[in-house]
Amino acid sequence: MALTFPRGWRAGTAACGIKAFTAGASAIPGDQRDDLCVIQSERQCDAGGVFTTNKVKAAPVVIDQLHLRQNRVQALVINSGNANACTGAQGYKDALLMAKLTADRLDLDPPQVLIGSTGVIGRYLPMEALKGGIAAACQGLSADNGPAAARAIMTTDTKPKTATTEVEVAGAQVRVGGMCKGAGMIHPNLATMLAYVTTDAAVEPGLMAALVRRVADRSFNQVTVDGDSSTNDTFLLLANGAAGNRPIGPASPEAELLEEAILLVARQLARAIAQDGEGATKLITVRVKGAPDHGQARQAARAVASSSLVKTAVHGGDPNWGRIVCALGYSGSELAIDRLTVRVGGLTVFTAGAGQPVDLEAVRQAFRTPEIEIAAELGLGDGEAEAWGCDLSEEYVQINADYTT
Amino acid sequence: MALTFPRGWRAGTAACGIKAFTAGASAIPGDQRDDLCVIQSERQCDAGGVFTTNKVKAAPVVIDQLHLRQNRVQALVINSGNANACTGAQGYKDALLMAKLTADRLDLDPPQVLIGSTGVIGRYLPMEALKGGIAAACQGLSADNGPAAARAIMTTDTKPKTATTEVEVAGAQVRVGGMCKGAGMIHPNLATMLAYVTTDAAVEPGLMAALVRRVADRSFNQVTVDGDSSTNDTFLLLANGAAGNRPIGPASPEAELLEEAILLVARQLARAIAQDGEGATKLITVRVKGAPDHGQARQAARAVASSSLVKTAVHGGDPNWGRIVCALGYSGSELAIDRLTVRVGGLTVFTAGAGQPVDLEAVRQAFRTPEIEIAAELGLGDGEAEAWGCDLSEEYVQINADYTT
Repeated sequence: MALTFPRGWRAGTAACGIKAFTAGASAIPGDQRDDLCVIQSERQCDAGGVFTTNKVKAAPVVIDQLHLRQNRVQALVINSGNANACTGAQGYKDALLMAKLTADRLDLDPPQVLIGSTGVIGRYLPMEALKGGIAAACQGLSADNGPAAARAIMTTDTKPKTATTEVEVAGAQVRVGGMCKGAGMIHPNLATMLAYVTTDAAVEPGLMAALVRRVADRSFNQVTVDGDSSTNDTFLLLANGAAGNRPIGPASPEAELLEEAILLVARQLARAIAQDGEGATKLITVRVKGAPDHGQARQAARAVASSSLVKTAVHGGDPNWGRIVCALGYSGSELAIDRLTVRVGGLTVFTAGAGQPVDLEAVRQAFRTPEIEIAAELGLGDGEAEAWGCDLSEEYVQINADYTT
Repeated sequence: MALTFPRGWRAGTAACGIKAFTAGASAIPGDQRDDLCVIQSERQCDAGGVFTTNKVKAAPVVIDQLHLRQNRVQALVINSGNANACTGAQGYKDALLMAKLTADRLDLDPPQVLIGSTGVIGRYLPMEALKGGIAAACQGLSADNGPAAARAIMTTDTKPKTATTEVEVAGAQVRVGGMCKGAGMIHPNLATMLAYVTTDAAVEPGLMAALVRRVADRSFNQVTVDGDSSTNDTFLLLANGAAGNRPIGPASPEAELLEEAILLVARQLARAIAQDGEGATKLITVRVKGAPDHGQARQAARAVASSSLVKTAVHGGDPNWGRIVCALGYSGSELAIDRLTVRVGGLTVFTAGAGQPVDLEAVRQAFRTPEIEIAAELGLGDGEAEAWGCDLSEEYVQINADYTT
């Protein structure tokens, strides 16, 4: 049910032919794939967002940042097929018009609508087509359309990505739902990631803004590499209060419970992005423990998960600890090689400063599973983190995977 | 002539079968490829070096840093096929023994010998084989063997990489020669780069150490991405004074001339690394002008040259300025999109905040050449820099190259 699993949320979708317009051709009549969705909450939300750190920010990112300041959000409108990035003054106009068209249909003010766009950079949005699409999506709003919305935001994704959970907080059943798009790439520097998590929890204003960065640091930021973010990357967190619980304030036990539930959904979505990596056959989970602090643990885990050479070694079924140790070495985290232990698929391959002989049959078994875990114990402190990546295949592998054999 | 183009330099090579030993098999009798070289100067040198910033440093890197402190270097011994990295106490012993075996043959002290190793991580060097190889290489020292030395240090390189130049400094003809190895990869994080530049210029002690980092910043560091360095990366600069000029002191016009000549050689070597990228069909040169300072220009140029999506666009013959602008945006350099102009292969594709219509036939012409230039004018200051990369091919391209069409 994705975004509409929490109470008081509805979704609608439409096929506008945005990609065909953007490519300069006339719309292909047969292309019926949805490329636009509207998400609506029955009441005003507390909302928080984190956005790309790229100095080139797409128009919808800038407008979202403005609209979030009022913290009165009640709807989203998102399109795929065109990123509305590097589109100058016209781009801002178009983004604002998307908000206004949606607001008009739902009887809201434009600042109550957030916008998302993903696709080709540097082309203007076909606003006439979007206008019709927004009308159709608003017409079709329903609590059943969460999955359809997740499909409408896909670009190179091979499957929609959704997650849900439910938790008892302050005597009420609180629901959390999410969807995202983004196909993890070798370098995810233009694979726009859009992620949206909704909940029906009632919260004090500002809680979502406080949680959104903490959650991102332990989920989406562990798939994409910092500084490599696209012009449109966006993660929004919205709470509409429909669960009817006593509003949750910051730094309370209830806030912690809610954060855990949101984090669970966000991590499932982040893993799904890694799993849908282009050409990927395996999900790689990197767990780092014993770093001096959580931040360094995150750096270390991310470096291993995003190393092309670790990825090729995994693809080739090669527990090449040299590449893992090297990635830990340049990650920015402290490292003392004599205190380090590395496990691949549960097998210890490096400990106390030296490689360990491994049982090749056990290695083959471990690599036959669709998910492989790399674990590094740094032996320096209490910091721990996870990161996710996928293996790398084809020509690059032909050159690298057999390097040690 | 490579390293032996300057006067007073000799080289010798040998085939030790290091790769076969390292892989655990017995040496293949038929494998006669040279995998070791010794470089000798007729007199003591002024020497400077820059090394990997990885926290995991291979034994030869650590020993070189120690030996350089005495600044009495007169020989190098370098092997391929085994990196002597992550090899603990035994690794240091082996690196020191390489220096001692070479010093003994050449009647030097061990600290007068620098060491280089490249190849597989985490295996001990086959010291018996190296001992024979060092003896043979020292026996065969000759001014003709510069090119053979460049071949002996290759690993996944498809061709040896050398460069030379000659310049009149302080009334003498001063020669500069260089060799390097390293096959630029998508992520060059384990493609050890070894680079050596020799000259016969006479210089005051310390000049090479002063120049080596400045030269690296404008050459080798513009191919590999900072922080992604391998356990063994090394760049050494050695001046033996055989040209007989009056010794060149720091901050003099003569030092500037010499630096220019060294930089010329270093940049040719750096370009050769990019050109030899795995699967590469095109050299990409990125020129950035108008950055606030040279450092930011270097960041910006490097970000574009190392962007996988720019590389695939080049491979696909697509002047996709969106990806270039995006890379500039996350590079860390200041950027004002309305002041930016981007040219691809001489064609203006982006200026004053907007994409420009391009002549598709001219684009096709530009992409037919084996070298393509991407130029960005930031319009913010006097900083300028170059960086080099190569295109990306195969499956990754199938997914990305046609994204905008």
